[in-house]
Amino acid sequence: MDYRLDYISRLFQKSSKKRLENYVISRFWHKLDNPEIKFVPQQYVSRNNKKYALTDLYLPQIGLHLEINEPAHYESPERIEIDEKRKKEIEKRTNHTVKVIDCRKSLSEIHKDIDIIVDFTKQKVEELIKNNKFKPWETDNQFSPEYHKKQGFLNIQDEPGLRTIEEICDLFDVKVPKRGFLRKGGVEHSTNKDLWIWWPSETNKNWENEIIENDSIIIEKHRKIETRKNHVLHTIKNPISRITFFSQTDNLGFKLYRFKGIFELDLELTSPEKGLIWKRKIDFIKL
Amino acid sequence: MDYRLDYISRLFQKSSKKRLENYVISRFWHKLDNPEIKFVPQQYVSRNNKKYALTDLYLPQIGLHLEINEPAHYESPERIEIDEKRKKEIEKRTNHTVKVIDCRKSLSEIHKDIDIIVDFTKQKVEELIKNNKFKPWETDNQFSPEYHKKQGFLNIQDEPGLRTIEEICDLFDVKVPKRGFLRKGGVEHSTNKDLWIWWPSETNKNWENEIIENDSIIIEKHRKIETRKNHVLHTIKNPISRITFFSQTDNLGFKLYRFKGIFELDLELTSPEKGLIWKRKIDFIKL
Repeated sequence: MDYRLDYISRLFQKSSKKRLENYVISRFWHKLDNPEIKFVPQQYVSRNNKKYALTDLYLPQIGLHLEINEPAHYESPERIEIDEKRKKEIEKRTNHTVKVIDCRKSLSEIHKDIDIIVDFTKQKVEELIKNNKFKPWETDNQFSPEYHKKQGFLNIQDEPGLRTIEEICDLFDVKVPKRGFLRKGGVEHSTNKDLWIWWPSETNKNWENEIIENDSIIIEKHRKIETRKNHVLHTIKNPISRITFFSQTDNLGFKLYRFKGIFELDLELTSPEKGLIWKRKIDFIKL
Repeated sequence: MDYRLDYISRLFQKSSKKRLENYVISRFWHKLDNPEIKFVPQQYVSRNNKKYALTDLYLPQIGLHLEINEPAHYESPERIEIDEKRKKEIEKRTNHTVKVIDCRKSLSEIHKDIDIIVDFTKQKVEELIKNNKFKPWETDNQFSPEYHKKQGFLNIQDEPGLRTIEEICDLFDVKVPKRGFLRKGGVEHSTNKDLWIWWPSETNKNWENEIIENDSIIIEKHRKIETRKNHVLHTIKNPISRITFFSQTDNLGFKLYRFKGIFELDLELTSPEKGLIWKRKIDFIKL
């Protein structure tokens, strides 16, 4: 199925338990009518050191959050104040815009309010295009090795993504490694022996991997202390730089391996307890 | 909540299990962008004497059915043939139009196909308006006694509807009857003693009521044979004509009492076994 259709129909479905939220999101999408603009549901935003928020909808390309408030949000002055505080904290913390739809209103009023947000979005997109800063939401074909081969490079600014390990290997013309029932975490580069092609996953049942500091640092550590220690001691003997595709699954269940740059091991910070600390050294690679 | 927002958001929610159907219906609604056009989900259509169909979406004002075929509909030539036969039978039986959206297509192709159906709908509506035959989908205020009082009449052509027994009584300025924990099925008219105001329900746990023959005949019968018999024998002693509001619940759970005309008892067809047979005599009443 068409990736964007698959994605956006899942997004609508995800919101369908709250039917007014579903109505507003679907209207915003269809009235905006621009498949180059990505919608993200349930966006995580930190509010301060302790608290976080999940906004109902987020448009990453223009930094717009949408909160769709069902009538219960207005049932007490305290609730209204809490929402207002939350909105301000998000805006302050992220420098994004937060817009609110009040679902107590009539159908025609809600339609007008959405039209205003559609216009706001179009204007923001036009500004980005004018300044040559607009990156359209990816289509199916951008997730293929062929697309990236044709481009001739990977740049972290473009957030290049692939769907499978097979596609990562295809991109570098290397054979997919097999290791019994476990998949290997990477493979040697075919021509440059000083490089490893690596596809770590975010935290799973065996690993507690993390990508932090604006994707510039990866902490790689096994959950079991003994395995972690052996893994660290083995790796530091011959620490090869890694072309890294970090695998993440989004709120809608779509898994992608995104190119994050070439990472080098930080031998000072690495330890058998803390695990391997990788730092991004290069943003770009020619293919 | 705004009736139409309540209704259409429930309709979207109902279709959310099939996410492509949900996507197509929401797009059709928002692109058409005319809250005077009613959408009905899961419309019952008889195909021939034995079979029936439920179409995914129906627009009663223009007689348009929409079938949204997820990819599974095209998995075999047999399945395709069955769908084609079904479409032809519906069109033949109802004289309506059946349009089909093929969800195997890409996002942009599906968008184009929906645009064509939006244009078709707009054109049909324009024709109806030109011929003075367009009846806009009701708004909240049309379900109020005040609205009908202001109109000064009820006409079955307009399918006048009220939401509660209280509103029916208010319309005729009579007191709402109470009878222990059971509601009475009707009440005497305040000025015309030859008329009864009646609000029968469709089949429920006590009654097997039916409205048939294009809403011109109502069969009223109790489920229990003994009660049915007593009810019939009691009613035929003094059969008063009835201003009738038949209560029906639609696919989305909205219950409405619709004015169906003034009904007279058909003493020939009525029997203690078959129940009371009421026939519509008058379509219109002044208020």
